[in-house]
Amino acid sequence: MSKKIGVVLSGSGVYDGSELHEAVCALLSLAREGLKAICIAPDVDQMHVVDHINGETTEERRNVLRESARIARGEIKAIEDINPTNLDALFFPGGFGAAKNLCNFAVKGSECDVNPEVESLVNAMLDSGKPIAAVCIAPALIARIAGKRGIRTEVTIGNDPDAADAIEKMGARHINCAINEIAVDSKNRIITGPAYMMTSSITEVAANIEQVVVRLKEML
Amino acid sequence: MSKKIGVVLSGSGVYDGSELHEAVCALLSLAREGLKAICIAPDVDQMHVVDHINGETTEERRNVLRESARIARGEIKAIEDINPTNLDALFFPGGFGAAKNLCNFAVKGSECDVNPEVESLVNAMLDSGKPIAAVCIAPALIARIAGKRGIRTEVTIGNDPDAADAIEKMGARHINCAINEIAVDSKNRIITGPAYMMTSSITEVAANIEQVVVRLKEML
Repeated sequence: MSKKIGVVLSGSGVYDGSELHEAVCALLSLAREGLKAICIAPDVDQMHVVDHINGETTEERRNVLRESARIARGEIKAIEDINPTNLDALFFPGGFGAAKNLCNFAVKGSECDVNPEVESLVNAMLDSGKPIAAVCIAPALIARIAGKRGIRTEVTIGNDPDAADAIEKMGARHINCAINEIAVDSKNRIITGPAYMMTSSITEVAANIEQVVVRLKEML
Repeated sequence: MSKKIGVVLSGSGVYDGSELHEAVCALLSLAREGLKAICIAPDVDQMHVVDHINGETTEERRNVLRESARIARGEIKAIEDINPTNLDALFFPGGFGAAKNLCNFAVKGSECDVNPEVESLVNAMLDSGKPIAAVCIAPALIARIAGKRGIRTEVTIGNDPDAADAIEKMGARHINCAINEIAVDSKNRIITGPAYMMTSSITEVAANIEQVVVRLKEML
């Protein structure tokens, strides 16, 4: 039986959802390593919809689960319909969706609120010692959830000083990483990588995510 | 100077736009082979918008260029703003968008109409002997454009008998291919692969697209 990795999506598109290259590279790396991806997302409206050509907010409303289904080719479940005991680990791709729809770090920084279902799911993994992987800005979400419980995780979002400072304020330790490095918190079983926080190269992002997935597999 | 490959997108999501895994795998393979991807799309409305959870058409209207920008992280141009002399080749990912938004093969089969800007662009490449790569259902679009001019291309969409029959009706020769095979029309410089027409495995799709891109590079 393949190990089941919940891939937590946050919409479809870097500026208001999951970063598509990161999400697809994660699905590809997981499959290559023999791990079964279970795509999941919260069934809530996006914070907003962004025109990806000019960066402006539009008048549209879109649902995080429904847009995330585009990445999953329709094979997706709402987080509320998932029993965490059926998952062996989680993987969070980045993109602004992780900081706008799964939590509101993009708006409130270190004081951010977290989607309750995402928080319950992450807490269930922390409680059972199951690994959590996150890339790009998504490690901020993990730092917040763990930090609220006094768990001092060690994570990276690359080397952006403002984001690193916010992560420290949430109770985590920030590890500066280059794009060919990852941070491994062996105690709390959390693996993070900078991905598009540190580069504009899809090949570097793919390699960084592969590093994260390989380490995740070793930890299972 | 890297060779420039126009990646023709058709929206964002398998059921009404570009298939996301194919599009991202194409961008990744092109980058790995040292080819520069120039993302382009027609600035037109999508045929329709499909809810990717239940497959139903929604009331929304979305623009092909704007949605395609999600795959391109905002770095995209309208086809009308591209001079074909500045491109060295084209790559068409699949997804229903190729058969709904770039042409209407999904509705009209072998009698399909083609978006005029896409048709002009493909014709410019055929006229100048520049290579065209296409995967999944997108080879049907190439068969149609070339067939209207009496150019008998050799393409594959895998081994689906109905699609193969429609391709033959449009004036092309259909080559049955397995998921680890590609069809190479050396005379007309067209390279095609079945991708998601033949499998549900992202690893097989990525490998098939890599085959296509490697052959495309050899042809440049």
